[in-house]
Amino acid sequence: MRLDSAEARRRFADSRVARLATVDASGQPHLVPVVFAVVGDTVYNAVDAKPKTSRDLRRLANVRANPRVSLLADHYADDDWAALWWVRADGEARVLAVDDAESVEAVDALAARYAQYRKQRPGGPVLAIDVRKWRGWSA
Amino acid sequence: MRLDSAEARRRFADSRVARLATVDASGQPHLVPVVFAVVGDTVYNAVDAKPKTSRDLRRLANVRANPRVSLLADHYADDDWAALWWVRADGEARVLAVDDAESVEAVDALAARYAQYRKQRPGGPVLAIDVRKWRGWSA
Repeated sequence: MRLDSAEARRRFADSRVARLATVDASGQPHLVPVVFAVVGDTVYNAVDAKPKTSRDLRRLANVRANPRVSLLADHYADDDWAALWWVRADGEARVLAVDDAESVEAVDALAARYAQYRKQRPGGPVLAIDVRKWRGWSA
Repeated sequence: MRLDSAEARRRFADSRVARLATVDASGQPHLVPVVFAVVGDTVYNAVDAKPKTSRDLRRLANVRANPRVSLLADHYADDDWAALWWVRADGEARVLAVDDAESVEAVDALAARYAQYRKQRPGGPVLAIDVRKWRGWSA
């Protein structure tokens, strides 16, 4: 069953984790789990100030080469396929400067959702994903 | 903490659901949750015989245009970031013919993992993803 756009957005915004797909210049997709906050039709995700590996940088480099991204939030539990639902958000990503006013608002929204960010605000760049389409299905 | 390749593969293979990223000819990524079985270094995923929407077809069309795909399995629970781990499998996908011997073996492996497939075997094409790299991290 297809969910309407408003219901798809609502379920996505209420989820605690999503998966972000970016694509490099050669066409290779890259996937990472992300925490996020939704403001209007924009999804915000922050990068830690000092990424321990190259994985965080890859996300940013990919977006600079190709802004088209996709995010997926889903519910899959106990192998009950009748309870499965998922929402996909397709859009274009922007990398915000750390001192950008939108970046500060984004981190505020992230801190409101996640206790870890209230203890320590993420210090790295913020990804802003402007969603063109919210699409959802429920089994 | 980075997981070694064998441990990353083991955690992935034991997961019940993963997310598959494919990319279309224009560079737009596409994400779907998938059930799967791992045989050696190949991940198998089956398409239902009669997909109700275009989503299953999109996955196949993308792979035919660009075989590079990425799969992600992760564990995220109760907002406990210290318990987070994830494994990414990057590789190339092939679309198998329904009567291919490898396709029959793949559906056997899927049926061994999922009761739903023992009740009704998936009748559509099988995606075979030959994994080049198993990469995993644990918080």
